Amino acid sequence: MILRDPVHGLVTFESAEESIVPSLLETQEVQRLRRIRQMGLASLAYPGADHTRFSHAIGAAHVMTRLLRRLRAIEDELPPEERVTEERAREALAGALLHDLGHGPFSHVFEEALPETRRHELWTERFVLDPDTEVHRVLSRYDSSLPQRVADLVRGEHPITFLARAVSGTFDVDRCDYLLRDAHFTGVGYGKFDLDWLLRSLRFGVRPSSGAPALAIDGPKGMQAIESFILARLFMFQQVYFHKTERASEWMLRCIFVRLRELLLDGSEPAGVPPAIAALSRTGDTDLGAYLAVDDGVLWVALSQLGGCRDRILSTLSRRLVSRKLFKTLELFGENASPAGRSSALERARDVARKRGLDPDVFVGLDAASTLAFDAGDDPPMVVFPSGAPRPLAEVSFLLGRLAGQRVERVRLVFAPELRDDIRRALP
Amino acid sequence: MILRDPVHGLVTFESAEESIVPSLLETQEVQRLRRIRQMGLASLAYPGADHTRFSHAIGAAHVMTRLLRRLRAIEDELPPEERVTEERAREALAGALLHDLGHGPFSHVFEEALPETRRHELWTERFVLDPDTEVHRVLSRYDSSLPQRVADLVRGEHPITFLARAVSGTFDVDRCDYLLRDAHFTGVGYGKFDLDWLLRSLRFGVRPSSGAPALAIDGPKGMQAIESFILARLFMFQQVYFHKTERASEWMLRCIFVRLRELLLDGSEPAGVPPAIAALSRTGDTDLGAYLAVDDGVLWVALSQLGGCRDRILSTLSRRLVSRKLFKTLELFGENASPAGRSSALERARDVARKRGLDPDVFVGLDAASTLAFDAGDDPPMVVFPSGAPRPLAEVSFLLGRLAGQRVERVRLVFAPELRDDIRRALP
Amino acid sequence: MILRDPVHGLVTFESAEESIVPSLLETQEVQRLRRIRQMGLASLAYPGADHTRFSHAIGAAHVMTRLLRRLRAIEDELPPEERVTEERAREALAGALLHDLGHGPFSHVFEEALPETRRHELWTERFVLDPDTEVHRVLSRYDSSLPQRVADLVRGEHPITFLARAVSGTFDVDRCDYLLRDAHFTGVGYGKFDLDWLLRSLRFGVRPSSGAPALAIDGPKGMQAIESFILARLFMFQQVYFHKTERASEWMLRCIFVRLRELLLDGSEPAGVPPAIAALSRTGDTDLGAYLAVDDGVLWVALSQLGGCRDRILSTLSRRLVSRKLFKTLELFGENASPAGRSSALERARDVARKRGLDPDVFVGLDAASTLAFDAGDDPPMVVFPSGAPRPLAEVSFLLGRLAGQRVERVRLVFAPELRDDIRRALP
Amino acid sequence: MILRDPVHGLVTFESAEESIVPSLLETQEVQRLRRIRQMGLASLAYPGADHTRFSHAIGAAHVMTRLLRRLRAIEDELPPEERVTEERAREALAGALLHDLGHGPFSHVFEEALPETRRHELWTERFVLDPDTEVHRVLSRYDSSLPQRVADLVRGEHPITFLARAVSGTFDVDRCDYLLRDAHFTGVGYGKFDLDWLLRSLRFGVRPSSGAPALAIDGPKGMQAIESFILARLFMFQQVYFHKTERASEWMLRCIFVRLRELLLDGSEPAGVPPAIAALSRTGDTDLGAYLAVDDGVLWVALSQLGGCRDRILSTLSRRLVSRKLFKTLELFGENASPAGRSSALERARDVARKRGLDPDVFVGLDAASTLAFDAGDDPPMVVFPSGAPRPLAEVSFLLGRLAGQRVERVRLVFAPELRDDIRRALP
Repeated sequence: MILRDPVHGLVTFESAEESIVPSLLETQEVQRLRRIRQMGLASLAYPGADHTRFSHAIGAAHVMTRLLRRLRAIEDELPPEERVTEERAREALAGALLHDLGHGPFSHVFEEALPETRRHELWTERFVLDPDTEVHRVLSRYDSSLPQRVADLVRGEHPITFLARAVSGTFDVDRCDYLLRDAHFTGVGYGKFDLDWLLRSLRFGVRPSSGAPALAIDGPKGMQAIESFILARLFMFQQVYFHKTERASEWMLRCIFVRLRELLLDGSEPAGVPPAIAALSRTGDTDLGAYLAVDDGVLWVALSQLGGCRDRILSTLSRRLVSRKLFKTLELFGENASPAGRSSALERARDVARKRGLDPDVFVGLDAASTLAFDAGDDPPMVVFPSGAPRPLAEVSFLLGRLAGQRVERVRLVFAPELRDDIRRALP
Repeated sequence: MILRDPVHGLVTFESAEESIVPSLLETQEVQRLRRIRQMGLASLAYPGADHTRFSHAIGAAHVMTRLLRRLRAIEDELPPEERVTEERAREALAGALLHDLGHGPFSHVFEEALPETRRHELWTERFVLDPDTEVHRVLSRYDSSLPQRVADLVRGEHPITFLARAVSGTFDVDRCDYLLRDAHFTGVGYGKFDLDWLLRSLRFGVRPSSGAPALAIDGPKGMQAIESFILARLFMFQQVYFHKTERASEWMLRCIFVRLRELLLDGSEPAGVPPAIAALSRTGDTDLGAYLAVDDGVLWVALSQLGGCRDRILSTLSRRLVSRKLFKTLELFGENASPAGRSSALERARDVARKRGLDPDVFVGLDAASTLAFDAGDDPPMVVFPSGAPRPLAEVSFLLGRLAGQRVERVRLVFAPELRDDIRRALP
Repeated sequence: MILRDPVHGLVTFESAEESIVPSLLETQEVQRLRRIRQMGLASLAYPGADHTRFSHAIGAAHVMTRLLRRLRAIEDELPPEERVTEERAREALAGALLHDLGHGPFSHVFEEALPETRRHELWTERFVLDPDTEVHRVLSRYDSSLPQRVADLVRGEHPITFLARAVSGTFDVDRCDYLLRDAHFTGVGYGKFDLDWLLRSLRFGVRPSSGAPALAIDGPKGMQAIESFILARLFMFQQVYFHKTERASEWMLRCIFVRLRELLLDGSEPAGVPPAIAALSRTGDTDLGAYLAVDDGVLWVALSQLGGCRDRILSTLSRRLVSRKLFKTLELFGENASPAGRSSALERARDVARKRGLDPDVFVGLDAASTLAFDAGDDPPMVVFPSGAPRPLAEVSFLLGRLAGQRVERVRLVFAPELRDDIRRALP
Repeated sequence: MILRDPVHGLVTFESAEESIVPSLLETQEVQRLRRIRQMGLASLAYPGADHTRFSHAIGAAHVMTRLLRRLRAIEDELPPEERVTEERAREALAGALLHDLGHGPFSHVFEEALPETRRHELWTERFVLDPDTEVHRVLSRYDSSLPQRVADLVRGEHPITFLARAVSGTFDVDRCDYLLRDAHFTGVGYGKFDLDWLLRSLRFGVRPSSGAPALAIDGPKGMQAIESFILARLFMFQQVYFHKTERASEWMLRCIFVRLRELLLDGSEPAGVPPAIAALSRTGDTDLGAYLAVDDGVLWVALSQLGGCRDRILSTLSRRLVSRKLFKTLELFGENASPAGRSSALERARDVARKRGLDPDVFVGLDAASTLAFDAGDDPPMVVFPSGAPRPLAEVSFLLGRLAGQRVERVRLVFAPELRDDIRRALP
């Protein structure tokens, strides 16, 4: 199989071990990812960001093929039992391709709104383990225990720790692909980093927390490459994932799900709600077939219909979201962003809504988005040198040392646009 | 308004005349384009090609802002009445943004399958002229005759001929954007050309067919730029728009529409068909509101449902298309591609289907795709020199002279995959 | 004038005020920059880095044209006397183009080796002010006081402070061009930043140190753009300007100049030394014509000849440098890099040389390269917001706040390759 | 060895067979290429084009490593004796790296001006075969017959024909690199083509002229890739290599060499002429050491000195070239470009010079540059298909079929700028 990918260029899956990728791509569970946008509602802010989880899955598998090639080039440094056999390569490729299989439409939002819902990782596991799925059948064809091993790997468990970390860790194939992909499709250059050089700088070190072999960075060669990888993530959060339009529209969608759930639990069922959504809202669960049928298009169709339902909250929010009459935001800085400050700001904004006769639970909210600039506690790669012991990244890197453990936070009021002037006036 | 576009980078609409673009972008008719993919089914072949007509509309308007800047830099060459006033700039921008507004989901396919259906250009016109649309209201706010002028412009009629040609012609803002955009999102580099240099090479000449001022190319500066623009289109046709997977899936979709129409005319109505599709299939027309409600998501939902309908042809094709079990193709070359050769090849393939008990009208077809490499008859830009008369592009360009009037054609048999081996054997 | 530049694409100088650029480009003083590489000896480490100061001068002037366009788009914010007239634009363009005119071959090295030599800024001033230069004549043609005003501007003095800062400051056209240019020609992507977006994010604020209008960054739009500009510089220092091969070869060249000067002051004159170099070494000065005749090629020819001179130190170092038998380096970290540690390390290395019978003054050295990651004290742009007072960059930026005032330093032993093993063993 | 290359990104030479590349790079003969610009005088027209033959040599060797990887991936199609052993890979890499070793400064010009001079291919051979060169010593270290085998290969002779053609043929590593490199450094995008895809599309076919295995293109995959490779060359010729400024300056340089030779043969020797140039001019030959000492810098220094010599022709042309007061051109089209037309145009221009008291042999000339758009006779790759016989490229490709055997020619008068107006008037 040979493909053109706008991010990685020429993508091939041709060797015996790679043949599992084209086989899995043909399953209906993977094909469903064609209809789920990678970045949820982000194209409301970045008109190019319509790329799907399907293209990301291929991209992650491609990065895995390149990583495997590098691992083999340096495997002399490993004891034989830690080397990547064809069998292990196959499960690594399957893990990379399938790691996000369980994502529903607008997935994070959905999960956050309905807390007792099965998380997407569990859906992925179910898709992989259920003997009735096409994915399961393809995996079993190779080896009856492969589905279980892939499920373990996606959950981060694997006898070869560095393979597990390459599917899910500070430096994993998922992140390598999504940063580059989201950068390409939004047009935000800050997400780019030098993947070629980064892969080429990989060496083996020892994982300090466990003593097991772990991926490490060649100090004299790779510092700028790993620094810019970490920074690319930070920039993407600040510029894209925390973008006000994106956050405001996700906030609206979350309200819609919460409200829908209240109605369903109250026994009312608005027309047009897909069965899986209804079941998930009520019970936190549904059957695989129903789940499989829900994608972005289905949900947009449902939102259009909810725009006409009788519940005023649900219909207002849905109509506004579908026609992109989005809520506005006001960012809080300094004192206003402190725990006390933000509570007080929210209260003032709610007062404004009340005075204007609008339900403050629906038309006003607080949105706090945060991430660690660099999580030095998540076993990031060590740095190795021609001589001397491996050293922690945060110690060697001028830049990362200053970012380790630091939290980036953006706090914003979210509200209907008609409240904007009043809320601005009401804040200190 | 300031935007990031992955194709053009920084995009701004800020001057007084440009303010019409953000106003139009907020209308529901333009917002609907967010849910219609620019390239129809192309992402089945190129996994990155999920970009929408919305991003293309912005891109075309952006290229128009750049073109207007160039036109004003050289307007000294024009008589005053041919210069671009603010009013004319505004309608040029609106025309660029709205030129494809009427496209339905999978538009070309739909139009081709239902020949008596209103074409997308007519839907565009209706959206612009109908006093009940938001687009109409925005345009009328500037000037009550603006909707009509924009509709004329999109149809290619305007007192300033070169503005009309810039909205629709051999070298127009539509093509400038879609070639670059489709190249960016498919990852096929061949669609790239040097837009900066091309715009900078524009001069005024005289349109030979009418004597009116026309855009021309500065001979000593711009030959490679215009050549590579024309070639970019040719390459994109050969590599992307004529791609076998794309053509095969469009062929399937066309069959679905044709079959659906037969059933509807026969009085049966399969469940799940959106009202607008049903009405269009039956009568070739529907009301604006219904048309507006149909987008890619709606159609995929409908196709999923048709996968379960009782008509075996409809359900088979729909199911295969949704789960991407696509038909295969066999390209015909040389003698086999001649009129007689292709009829004979099709007949043999149909025989194969019959022998295998499959309906030849459904499981076998012939697909001929063709375009002119360079249409020297469509009033392409002339070439001007520091001295001497303007000369035709095909005469000055070594390359284009050899391509003018030449037709590129790809002829293929299309058939269900289970017939492949037999059909291969059956052909000479 | 219209040019293709590999860094900026289409470059034009066409307006009345811009016409000064093509005029200056034709002078022999500017043409000389064609024969001086921008990055000195860097192509010994990065084989693509052969670009010249000539192309950089054009690039800086081009960035100035873009900056001027932006300044005029926002000049409403300024009192009329602070706006950029055509006359001031002309001197800004000339200043941008000529700011490095006085650089000699391998300039920084030369200046550092011969401390009492006139610095390149003074040579620039002399070229501009001397009535016999072609540059002076071109400038005077516009206005007899223009040479003086350009000289002032290059020195950082101008009635409009923000213009002076744009020629020489934390964010100036010189740096904008050289970061992008050096990145393009070395192939080190880290030097790239988003110039379009950065220019578009410029606003006017008030310079805190003086109360004068100053360039500022639009907070909600431009934070990532200015952050990545500052980081680009940091990365380029770490990856390129502090590259061990580059530093080692510069160290050798410096030794050559120092030795040459000793010989000349002693009254001996090795064959092949260009007159200007001899004069500069002896007296720190020479005449303009002689200085003008010295370029990279001349110096390489001289080094080739010095390779055969009788002084063993001079001939050894010259021969090694010309045939790229470069000295090696050993980086010192932690305690070894402290003032005491590095002295001790140097002493041990010198001992090694002595034991091997090599002159420690020639064959061993210490090289410490350092720069501020972000100089918050150099009046960097403030950050402005829709409401509220301008705030310092280091306060608003998560990243820059952590880099402000921090010094990056690389300390290395430099030595002849034949000493490498012994020196490694000799260090703690 | 691991390098950053601005064209190819990460470049490595690490395997056993590749180790020959770093060894050869250290020789003085290869290091000399650092001081010879790849594109001669092109930076007079394209200010970025200062890249050297050294970086091109590395690039060509890099493309060879990639080609070898592809050859090995498909070598199953070959009889064992045609496969690429480590030994043959080593000579292919050496051949790629050294193919242009013999180029002198401004090489083509020099060769053309002094027809009986040894051509650069012969100098390459001499460098490789002479036992006293460092290159020879490095090669002999591997195998005493390696120098001879590399010399043969560079001349296009090798038992494995497709290796010989990959060093020198329609599709060879030299061209692959120089098109991309010249495009990168001039900023002319037209030279770009999709090297990844092109390499990936390579298959084995049979060379029609000899029956030997030959590189071929995979028809269904690679047509656009090979087409755009051929077109890239055509565009680069039209846009860059035939650029009027480049051609005019080369014309001047050629005149300088011719005049210099006349003087030398007459027994006069202007000061400053490097010994190798003098010897070559007189006898067509010189010794290797002298030849090695001549590079671009040496020649510019010589031209500066010739600017002051007594011969008026030599001094005028040299002074103008060094200070970039270049000759102008006037392109001849149509009838004026025919054999008769151009003779007549030249005669008129010479008359103009005579009337103005200028020597027509020096101040006026005719420059005709031409190349084949696509040389279908030079055994270009065949095209292979899953079934059926290989077919010629010109037959399969719509585009190349129309270009095969067609000659692109640019004919221009070249003359001193002071003659421009008169010559324009004098032409029909």
